[in-house]
Amino acid sequence: MNTTSLQQRFMRLRSNKAFELFVVAVIIGSALLVGLKTYDLHPLAQLVAAWLDHLITLIFLTEITIRFIGEEHKRNFFKNPWNIFDTLIVTISLIPIDNTDMALVARLVRVFRVLRMVSIIPELRMLLNSLIKALPQLGYVLLLMFIIFYIYAAMGSTLFEEINPELWGDVTISLLTLFRVMTFEDWTDVMYETMTVYPLSWTYYITFIFFTAFAFLNMVIGIVVNVMNNEHNKVLKQKALEAHEPTIADLHRQLEELKALIKSK
Amino acid sequence: MNTTSLQQRFMRLRSNKAFELFVVAVIIGSALLVGLKTYDLHPLAQLVAAWLDHLITLIFLTEITIRFIGEEHKRNFFKNPWNIFDTLIVTISLIPIDNTDMALVARLVRVFRVLRMVSIIPELRMLLNSLIKALPQLGYVLLLMFIIFYIYAAMGSTLFEEINPELWGDVTISLLTLFRVMTFEDWTDVMYETMTVYPLSWTYYITFIFFTAFAFLNMVIGIVVNVMNNEHNKVLKQKALEAHEPTIADLHRQLEELKALIKSK
Amino acid sequence: MNTTSLQQRFMRLRSNKAFELFVVAVIIGSALLVGLKTYDLHPLAQLVAAWLDHLITLIFLTEITIRFIGEEHKRNFFKNPWNIFDTLIVTISLIPIDNTDMALVARLVRVFRVLRMVSIIPELRMLLNSLIKALPQLGYVLLLMFIIFYIYAAMGSTLFEEINPELWGDVTISLLTLFRVMTFEDWTDVMYETMTVYPLSWTYYITFIFFTAFAFLNMVIGIVVNVMNNEHNKVLKQKALEAHEPTIADLHRQLEELKALIKSK
Amino acid sequence: MNTTSLQQRFMRLRSNKAFELFVVAVIIGSALLVGLKTYDLHPLAQLVAAWLDHLITLIFLTEITIRFIGEEHKRNFFKNPWNIFDTLIVTISLIPIDNTDMALVARLVRVFRVLRMVSIIPELRMLLNSLIKALPQLGYVLLLMFIIFYIYAAMGSTLFEEINPELWGDVTISLLTLFRVMTFEDWTDVMYETMTVYPLSWTYYITFIFFTAFAFLNMVIGIVVNVMNNEHNKVLKQKALEAHEPTIADLHRQLEELKALIKSK
Repeated sequence: MNTTSLQQRFMRLRSNKAFELFVVAVIIGSALLVGLKTYDLHPLAQLVAAWLDHLITLIFLTEITIRFIGEEHKRNFFKNPWNIFDTLIVTISLIPIDNTDMALVARLVRVFRVLRMVSIIPELRMLLNSLIKALPQLGYVLLLMFIIFYIYAAMGSTLFEEINPELWGDVTISLLTLFRVMTFEDWTDVMYETMTVYPLSWTYYITFIFFTAFAFLNMVIGIVVNVMNNEHNKVLKQKALEAHEPTIADLHRQLEELKALIKSK
Repeated sequence: MNTTSLQQRFMRLRSNKAFELFVVAVIIGSALLVGLKTYDLHPLAQLVAAWLDHLITLIFLTEITIRFIGEEHKRNFFKNPWNIFDTLIVTISLIPIDNTDMALVARLVRVFRVLRMVSIIPELRMLLNSLIKALPQLGYVLLLMFIIFYIYAAMGSTLFEEINPELWGDVTISLLTLFRVMTFEDWTDVMYETMTVYPLSWTYYITFIFFTAFAFLNMVIGIVVNVMNNEHNKVLKQKALEAHEPTIADLHRQLEELKALIKSK
Repeated sequence: MNTTSLQQRFMRLRSNKAFELFVVAVIIGSALLVGLKTYDLHPLAQLVAAWLDHLITLIFLTEITIRFIGEEHKRNFFKNPWNIFDTLIVTISLIPIDNTDMALVARLVRVFRVLRMVSIIPELRMLLNSLIKALPQLGYVLLLMFIIFYIYAAMGSTLFEEINPELWGDVTISLLTLFRVMTFEDWTDVMYETMTVYPLSWTYYITFIFFTAFAFLNMVIGIVVNVMNNEHNKVLKQKALEAHEPTIADLHRQLEELKALIKSK
Repeated sequence: MNTTSLQQRFMRLRSNKAFELFVVAVIIGSALLVGLKTYDLHPLAQLVAAWLDHLITLIFLTEITIRFIGEEHKRNFFKNPWNIFDTLIVTISLIPIDNTDMALVARLVRVFRVLRMVSIIPELRMLLNSLIKALPQLGYVLLLMFIIFYIYAAMGSTLFEEINPELWGDVTISLLTLFRVMTFEDWTDVMYETMTVYPLSWTYYITFIFFTAFAFLNMVIGIVVNVMNNEHNKVLKQKALEAHEPTIADLHRQLEELKALIKSK
């Protein structure tokens, strides 16, 4: 058996429905295993879990190998970011770890295996792609929002630092505090504290909430308008396809010709 | 009187407006009774309530029987899930109960009688059907959201379990804690606690809030676009009905024929 | 001077721009006065405020009288609910009050004078009318939401009454507690308390939040679709106005006639 | 070299891409410097920061001067509000300050330099302009919302002042408390406190939440409809441009003429 036939065999295997379902089942199994390990387990169960873990790593390794060999042009394999992600996750899982510090990292890597669900189900991949595509359009609104946050954070840590350094110690902590205010989480406690020193500091909070709410509203409307325009463009494209059909202007010209023809007779 | 005429009589009774209004009134009565029993009642009032309860059960039983006999094809009766629901609720109400444990279940079943309001008012039934129909379209967004939740829950219970086992004990408790964070309910208390051990753990919360908010926004926009497409399709269907009307292309052809006719003369 | 000419004079006065602006200014003055009285005032200022109050009552009384006399058909005056509202507010302001209990009611009535702003500015009146018109369309969604609330409240006061009677004492208190849970206000405190007795009671809260959020989302989408349909209908009406214009079917008929005419020659 | 050529040179410099990028870099530098100064700095670092501060002021001063000289018509320079804003910020930065009170103000002015980001990036300027343009359309909804807030605040400070003067002391404090209730921030604490004196005061809060939520919903829908109308108007304008194209009515007239022509032959 030569390598070409092996590649073709693996390519067929790759697009096999049963193979895909098996991989999805193994991913779900690895997700359940990750969840299971957060419970206090019997030593025997822990041993079984460790063995299952090795088995899943082995299956994933085999699967990635099949996918790689099954690829016609080896270069294209690493052009797909999901393949890079899959290879990375599997490779890191292979590193043997003993000391406790790395064990934590290893466990976290195993958690990210659940993300392989997204890389294997096309609908989820499409959903994530469309989410990522929507981001740059919101770029300037997000920049404006960050400028608002930054100005308020700099003002906050200038004015309120001595009142409560845990909330307004420096600009980073202030940004976190302002994010908390934006989510309305105990924001009045933060406000009442500063109002004891600066009685008018409620204006700081109210204007901040108004500005961010307004920018957020703008962002949502921006997305809706964008979605509507996309729908509108689809309709326009459909119309363009029908453009070879005769128009009213064509009929107009035909009628003028007819008139001339009749007159000339 | 033979059974056929009885069936026809009951079918007529079933679609009688007064009969329907009477049933709705009895359901409202049973709802009020359920509410009333949550107050501390005088022993006499309790007795009256118990008797009213039996009366309502009897009326519901009679009504279901009328509906069943009034059905032309007995098989169709149980094809309607609302009929199954009604029968179930009434049957369970019939079981005599004495010991306190079952009494609680019996009281809860009586609460669900209020749901018969949905089964009897067509507009509510339609509303619920349309809600249920909308669910599968959101399937993949909900799956993506669950994956985000699961990964964060597994990470949370791996990293924070020793800080506060009541919040991060295992993956189930962590999911509940993350749902709490998503609703912004005292999420900073949860965050500040873990930040004492991992000072950078605020990234965990901020990214989680961003991802879920983004997925949620996507879901809402998905629904709006879907609703708009449905409206658009209605317009397209209407246009298809008008398709037998002559088009501009038909006029074009007619004019060509006319021209040929005039030339040939 | 006879009464007819007086009526016509007052009708002209009523639609006078300066008169309207003066009334708006008095309403704003009464609003400021209401706000002012919530501060601790100097006895002299209190006296001035009381005198201003009487003056405003007098002006309002004069204004209503002018409006009433200015009305051509006296019956129509009370057909406008805003006129009834205005008359009621002014009449109640006239009742002399001395004892402290009624004084509170009198102060509250003076607060409602601010609502006259809505009755005098046409744009606000239109806005409120359109809000009220939108309500019945949401009727069935609100009914469904109330049924969900009621069932959960009845279940809650059945199951959790003994855990915390202040939150789950009877069905009314439970409804209030559930409204609190819907606004996410310290809902986890309520949940953790019942979870000590029923460890699975988190399902009660999570399902409740899902159902209400879903119904709420449905309501918002219902309004958006409704608004879109209204816009669509406006476009359709505009098209109907252009319906007397010739259609393609008319041209088709004309061309058939022409063909027959040419053939017959 | 005469002044005219200097003006033209500076005008060219002003629209130079490298010059713009340099200014943006300096603004980002000033933003970082503002953030840096909120941390506890080594005395040497403080000295460097102070020198950088002077340098940035100098660069901004030079830049504004270049912009002003580069302007063809000097009057137009101050017609642009962003130019006035820039000049103001730079001028205030120039004032030498020693005593601590003014030092705080000086630091705050330096914070507002970050806003120059908006004045220099055209996309952000456009975004802000469109936000400001959207405001007046919401005017009446905001007025209605303020009336609701004011009436409830006046009622609140009349009824609840003696219960908790810190929350309901006067109409201004009550407005702040109501804003807190609208953001659902510990609103039940506020409610339970007043319910101990007025057991029915929950109606006050529930109706307030309903009214404001309803007005807010109305505002959002108003914006969406407005955005949709703008899109619709764009389509109509495009159609108006195509208005010189022949219409069906034109064809109708042409056909009538043809018929007459044929008949006359």
